[in-house]
Amino acid sequence: MCTMARPATGSKALDPKNTGLGPVEFNLNDYMAGKARRVNEALDHAVPLRHPAKIHESMRYSLLAGGKRVRPVLAIASCELVGGDEAAAMPVACAAEMIHTMSLIHDDLPCMDDDDLRRGQPTNHRAFGEDTAILAGDALLSLAFEHVAASTAGVAPERLVRALAELGSAVGSDGLVAGQIVDIASERLAVDLNVLEYIHIHKTARLLEAAAVCGAIVGGGEDGEVERVRRYARCVGLLFQVVDDILDVTKTSEELGKTAGKDLASDKATYPKLMGLDKAREFARTLVVKAEEELSGFDGARAAPLYHLAHYIAYRQN
Amino acid sequence: MCTMARPATGSKALDPKNTGLGPVEFNLNDYMAGKARRVNEALDHAVPLRHPAKIHESMRYSLLAGGKRVRPVLAIASCELVGGDEAAAMPVACAAEMIHTMSLIHDDLPCMDDDDLRRGQPTNHRAFGEDTAILAGDALLSLAFEHVAASTAGVAPERLVRALAELGSAVGSDGLVAGQIVDIASERLAVDLNVLEYIHIHKTARLLEAAAVCGAIVGGGEDGEVERVRRYARCVGLLFQVVDDILDVTKTSEELGKTAGKDLASDKATYPKLMGLDKAREFARTLVVKAEEELSGFDGARAAPLYHLAHYIAYRQN
Repeated sequence: MCTMARPATGSKALDPKNTGLGPVEFNLNDYMAGKARRVNEALDHAVPLRHPAKIHESMRYSLLAGGKRVRPVLAIASCELVGGDEAAAMPVACAAEMIHTMSLIHDDLPCMDDDDLRRGQPTNHRAFGEDTAILAGDALLSLAFEHVAASTAGVAPERLVRALAELGSAVGSDGLVAGQIVDIASERLAVDLNVLEYIHIHKTARLLEAAAVCGAIVGGGEDGEVERVRRYARCVGLLFQVVDDILDVTKTSEELGKTAGKDLASDKATYPKLMGLDKAREFARTLVVKAEEELSGFDGARAAPLYHLAHYIAYRQN
Repeated sequence: MCTMARPATGSKALDPKNTGLGPVEFNLNDYMAGKARRVNEALDHAVPLRHPAKIHESMRYSLLAGGKRVRPVLAIASCELVGGDEAAAMPVACAAEMIHTMSLIHDDLPCMDDDDLRRGQPTNHRAFGEDTAILAGDALLSLAFEHVAASTAGVAPERLVRALAELGSAVGSDGLVAGQIVDIASERLAVDLNVLEYIHIHKTARLLEAAAVCGAIVGGGEDGEVERVRRYARCVGLLFQVVDDILDVTKTSEELGKTAGKDLASDKATYPKLMGLDKAREFARTLVVKAEEELSGFDGARAAPLYHLAHYIAYRQN
């Protein structure tokens, strides 16, 4: 049974004061920082600098560039939710981050989004050239699968195989690639809510979902538990994008630490634009409540990280 | 015991009349054509045309463009060598072809080899655009792993996991990607035999080896059998490139069905250029003899396809 209170519903804004956060004492910042540190160590270890130097420098440049490691944390927290430990989840956690990094490197390419900067640094192709950037993405993608398949964390092979199939389906033409190809095709078209949701689910939510699901699988979760984790993560993935869109129109650039209002300026489809700001906030609240509901059957202490992670994503200010 | 005779050694040329091919009746053309037909059916089935249409059209365009399906045939023949059946090998056979196709699509890109034609047809990026070509490669690469992980051919999960690790290592920064990055870096440099062999082993031999090894793994091969298949395939992979280089300087364009002498014209490093034509032929003969030796402990009838495949590669005229 879950001992955690729900946030007050009907609140007028996504405001952390209204969450009614209850009895479970938990420091999400400390939790995430500790997990991210060990994930970074594992990633550093997984891609040592060796011959040929250039490709490994390029892979490490993007893979070890920092970030909150949300996908790995989701994998580890989901593994712990069902009774597994961090060591069992680490290979799939690293794999999810390798895949995420690959998608950023390839999406930044001149023939795609043509971005020069990522997290304030030159994008991979600006630093290493387009050819190396494409190959670094390819190498990270195959390494993700190899890393899980060759892992020695004592997880049963049938669970590794299930996790590998899940990861694969999150990347390909039913996952990240599907989202990116529809996003590119939609750039010059009027996008409706269905298409917007398709893009977000495939470009963002699907890999977050796979990370969490893989964590639950390698953690020994029963089928019903794995499916609850899947629904939780799907809500959280969509929530992430809806809140991103809301922040873009409600916050200043200073508060965000990046250019505010750029979605509006670029005429990009967003939730506030397509459904209005109030409805977008309501949708975000619905998603966070749904995500919490999926956690309600689990032990409260074990569910705390995922519960607080959903709240952090919903109520963050930047 | 192997009942097959060795080709006469000391022959002055790589000439099929000198192979001394003995008692085992076997028609390699029929064998390869039958396997290729069923591989093509499986590939067609693995990538149906569905939403989003453009990415699936692009994947299918390159994946179903024909070719001899050497990697899948190697996988299936190696599986049958150790007592497995074609159905067990088909997922890894298809995966090897998906990976090979991905590497062709990405290597043809403007920022890499900048090729407009492949097998007489426009390259993927010429037909679908660079962005779609990169994404089609990414999708084929992840599908390769997903296809094996989600396969239902009754192979034990621990063998699937081993095969997935093998495939992954053949693609990444110790495999295809390593070969391509060194090849690109070597374009403007004097290449010695060590570098030439590094490029060929990584760009060509490593995936042929992985295909064969995966076939032997999913076929239930013992560790010693799997390693013998690995050494066989490594020889055959290198042989393929050495013979390619020899044909380029000894045959006319008409005989080859492609431009002859283009390696010489482009000042590209080749075996005949670096070691002379006679030594290159001698090296090829050494490789085919070594490949045969690795088959000598297996049942002659089961080994016939791999034996004849090595000979076909060694003594082909185009």
